[in-house]
Amino acid sequence: MGVALAESFLGHGHPVTIWNRTAEKGDNLVTKGAHRAATVAEAVSASPITIMCLKDYETMYGIFDSMGDILKGRVLVNLNSGTPAEAHAAAGWAAERGADYLDGAIMVPPPLVGQPDSVFLYSGSQDVFDRHRAMLASLGDPRYLGSDPSLAVLYNTALLDMMYATMNGFLHATALVASADVPAVKFADLAINWFMPTVVDSTLVEQASNLDKSYYPGDFGTMEMNLNALEHITRTSVEQAVHSDQPRLMKEIAERAIAEGYSGKNYLAVFEIFKKPTQASS
Amino acid sequence: MGVALAESFLGHGHPVTIWNRTAEKGDNLVTKGAHRAATVAEAVSASPITIMCLKDYETMYGIFDSMGDILKGRVLVNLNSGTPAEAHAAAGWAAERGADYLDGAIMVPPPLVGQPDSVFLYSGSQDVFDRHRAMLASLGDPRYLGSDPSLAVLYNTALLDMMYATMNGFLHATALVASADVPAVKFADLAINWFMPTVVDSTLVEQASNLDKSYYPGDFGTMEMNLNALEHITRTSVEQAVHSDQPRLMKEIAERAIAEGYSGKNYLAVFEIFKKPTQASS
Repeated sequence: MGVALAESFLGHGHPVTIWNRTAEKGDNLVTKGAHRAATVAEAVSASPITIMCLKDYETMYGIFDSMGDILKGRVLVNLNSGTPAEAHAAAGWAAERGADYLDGAIMVPPPLVGQPDSVFLYSGSQDVFDRHRAMLASLGDPRYLGSDPSLAVLYNTALLDMMYATMNGFLHATALVASADVPAVKFADLAINWFMPTVVDSTLVEQASNLDKSYYPGDFGTMEMNLNALEHITRTSVEQAVHSDQPRLMKEIAERAIAEGYSGKNYLAVFEIFKKPTQASS
Repeated sequence: MGVALAESFLGHGHPVTIWNRTAEKGDNLVTKGAHRAATVAEAVSASPITIMCLKDYETMYGIFDSMGDILKGRVLVNLNSGTPAEAHAAAGWAAERGADYLDGAIMVPPPLVGQPDSVFLYSGSQDVFDRHRAMLASLGDPRYLGSDPSLAVLYNTALLDMMYATMNGFLHATALVASADVPAVKFADLAINWFMPTVVDSTLVEQASNLDKSYYPGDFGTMEMNLNALEHITRTSVEQAVHSDQPRLMKEIAERAIAEGYSGKNYLAVFEIFKKPTQASS
């Protein structure tokens, strides 16, 4: 990922100084015009802004904590992933060292870095974001989420959470039809090219404002009716001899929503269950 | 739903004879030109084809089983939902009574019935489908899935399964960002309008043919790396005090895939787990 980031900057004509614990990893970048710093201190002092893409926050602390005050007056943009608490801690760590700090998350795989519609999420110092927006746009489409430095990693985690749930939903549904020898390619055409955008995604976009109001009118279908459907999906999974844990958990979550008084509300009231920690089963 | 179906036929100029156990439910349809049959036998004999939208297969049997051979030589299209085994049994039941049988599933809510792009799924007699295709197109976009009569209900169940998983994924992700006071409307704009079509759906369509080949190259990310991400999502859910059962189950499914030898494969190898019944934990 570090190579992809540096290449995008070079491709947009920005002078780039690189540093990696394993110096040879930068060989190709040097042939493309990057300057290789011999030390972290040299790398940080070479440019008005330092972009870090490390394994985790601990690695960042390990690199800088023995370096005295080389971060003082510097601008740091950190693109590793982590938890919101870790991002908050990192922002405090940077502030103590006198550095401006922007936390970020990369929402695309390395081959898509540098494309104009590849989303990069940022949170923390709005001043850093505004001053360096044009430079950050070399990497993709920079989106500023707010001054809370944890927002970028939280959004990143939430989007991945949604991605896995959606992929699991598709894979499990494909396993269901595969039990009757339907090819995945055939199912995907209907499921992804028609059903997802037309039925699912449009509903979610339409209903998002109701989530913010905790407004779940049951006029077009209640939680009870959705529980029936989820029981049916679970039963069919068992009958077709495919994995059934995933529909069973969704059924249990709908049951929990009913137990908490949402039986006459629509399905999106499950949001109220998700906003609270998991309870032990009663 | 029965009213929506009859209205669509009437709106396209088809003569319609209706019957319902509760006759008054058809009053509005009669004012719109439907003929009301006094008995099931009268309804079935009035038209070349009988469309049924009942609670379940048992209800269908209850209505017809005491009626002698009124179904002989008739064409039945059954739109209730059920399991694949129930659909198979219904096709056998219809054949015993000398009726042609098409099983179907309605993929849109009642207000969308009659729109040209509202998908209706059919399986069973291709002859019935081909002969009555134009008439069925009054209801929406008719898709014939194959001669196996269970395909329509199986696809229906699979699409709903995917819908719930996707909705749960979005709702859980929205709960995660709501823990930092991000409005659902703001998250939905990025999550549904950008991330889903650009990152998730396009990947699934691209990869569907690999599912059919059980081909899961790990070049751009292994199951181990995805397990790390799922552990991270689960930990963040706990840290943010939101519900954590759903990411935890996804984590466990990835662990199961690794236990079964897919650690170096890409994430979609989870499909291999889903194609088998749930195992007791080892």
